[in-house]
Amino acid sequence: MLALPSRTEIVEVSPRDGLQSHSRAVDTRTKIALVDALTDAGFPVIEVTAFSHPRAIPNLADAEAVMAGITRRPGTIYRALAPNLRGAERAVAAQADEVLGLATLSGTYTAKNQNMTVEQALDQAICAFALTQEAGRRFVMALGMSFWCPYEGTIPEADVLRAVERLHDAGVRRIYLAGSVGMEDPRHVSRLFARLVGAFPDCAFGYHVHDRAGFAPANILAALDGGARWLEGAVCGLGGGMAMPGGERPPGNYPTEDLVHLLEASGIGTGLDLSRVIAVAERAAHLLGLQPNSHVTQWGTRASQLEAARPRIPAFTHSGDALQ
Amino acid sequence: MLALPSRTEIVEVSPRDGLQSHSRAVDTRTKIALVDALTDAGFPVIEVTAFSHPRAIPNLADAEAVMAGITRRPGTIYRALAPNLRGAERAVAAQADEVLGLATLSGTYTAKNQNMTVEQALDQAICAFALTQEAGRRFVMALGMSFWCPYEGTIPEADVLRAVERLHDAGVRRIYLAGSVGMEDPRHVSRLFARLVGAFPDCAFGYHVHDRAGFAPANILAALDGGARWLEGAVCGLGGGMAMPGGERPPGNYPTEDLVHLLEASGIGTGLDLSRVIAVAERAAHLLGLQPNSHVTQWGTRASQLEAARPRIPAFTHSGDALQ
Repeated sequence: MLALPSRTEIVEVSPRDGLQSHSRAVDTRTKIALVDALTDAGFPVIEVTAFSHPRAIPNLADAEAVMAGITRRPGTIYRALAPNLRGAERAVAAQADEVLGLATLSGTYTAKNQNMTVEQALDQAICAFALTQEAGRRFVMALGMSFWCPYEGTIPEADVLRAVERLHDAGVRRIYLAGSVGMEDPRHVSRLFARLVGAFPDCAFGYHVHDRAGFAPANILAALDGGARWLEGAVCGLGGGMAMPGGERPPGNYPTEDLVHLLEASGIGTGLDLSRVIAVAERAAHLLGLQPNSHVTQWGTRASQLEAARPRIPAFTHSGDALQ
Repeated sequence: MLALPSRTEIVEVSPRDGLQSHSRAVDTRTKIALVDALTDAGFPVIEVTAFSHPRAIPNLADAEAVMAGITRRPGTIYRALAPNLRGAERAVAAQADEVLGLATLSGTYTAKNQNMTVEQALDQAICAFALTQEAGRRFVMALGMSFWCPYEGTIPEADVLRAVERLHDAGVRRIYLAGSVGMEDPRHVSRLFARLVGAFPDCAFGYHVHDRAGFAPANILAALDGGARWLEGAVCGLGGGMAMPGGERPPGNYPTEDLVHLLEASGIGTGLDLSRVIAVAERAAHLLGLQPNSHVTQWGTRASQLEAARPRIPAFTHSGDALQ
């Protein structure tokens, strides 16, 4: 039997992780409308933008404008990615409540895509953390390819523990694991979280859900069983997976509306209203001109199906014919 | 932590449960080719056809011809659905190794669709079982809507236990649970299997995987954790879900190729070669003129991605240009 918590927290990443790799550029006004809709839907943490070099993430070159334009709700945490110290300075200046650092645990991937070693990427993130902490803001560290890499295969769990130890020594206390490719399996997910939670009891670990293999529902429950304290998704499944060597872009972020549906059905509280999450996914789809890539927006909930199955009393016209 | 077995058995249902509700009629020759391909792929149990009234299941009116035309491999179990005593007689005459009985545990659904009570449906199945047993063949009972019904909501677990007790008293020892609608949640699945396995230790229970909500991977592991001894899928996800009151047909049977992929990734043996399962799904898709509705046929396995990521030595033409 899984050891599932009675509640967990949901972080919504569509405006940053979703839009970062979106095939179409989205204007600042639309991004602001998306973030505001997510605020109204009640998400406790929203990943708004990234403070990167505009050449690195052209889709998010308007980071300061978005941060300045959103309507912030007191108590909601507005997060921004800061890939380095300069990014952290900008994020703090732009009033981000939480700064997200990032390193990918595959040496091959990090060398190819960032021209540095994993240790150098961790160094960079630790500097971003130090500045963020000095500014009195929250910091969370993303560890990409925590489970598997298309170049290296399975990432040794010892490598993950070593990276977390380094971050922990530097004072980082909030870390999330991402599969990035979305090919991790539930036993690995459960085991790795359990090891990390056991080794670093003063840290909180989250699971950022990617889903290429279709295993995500099992991985989500496995992460919670292993002690993950929060989960990350993107409405509509926004954010295709990492472009693969062949160039195609598979499913990426798990749709938040399916995530919340699964948790609610499994008796795990999120503090969110599923119908409002579904509604904001539909709103996001409308804003972005796409179809939500989720089960619940297409096939409904148990409540919506019970409603659809209810017999209806026909209404009669004056001629006595039944109207459907 | 989940208590997962080291191995489980896969039953392949595409030729019957898949084709039964397929939107296009498939000719006898194609059905035979499908079954033969599944035999070659190594499935231990294949659900070939149904011995129903041709008006009840027009797609499978050629049951005798299909059974007579397939090339049977020694050791493979060829199963056929028999909704009643007459169906069981025909199945036995057609040399089915295993007869599948069926009842749906929602009284409202059974009244609407079969014009009888659940008890009458169980009676009918028990008669089919008695004849099958007399003929020395295997029998397995399908319990549809074991978890939830769009008319009645959650099916009380006590109702399921009562139905199983009735079947067990009659001598039935192999029973599978199906969600039918595919909206069941993992805690319910795990709990119900554990209760049944605990109450009827001399029975073997299987889980027939439907997936409307997208929870299937979690439900699959939950079923195994609860003590299910086998799993049922359909290659390509063939077999749309039950037509809902609005008329639309959502996802139904979980794709066998994704099922086997999940199990293999989770270290659970199936006796099947995943690459052969993927190949037969692609063959089935070709035979039936459709796209497989599965993750693994579209997005690959870890092995295929490692292969795709390998650097390639360019081949040079006589002019010295590198060919990709």
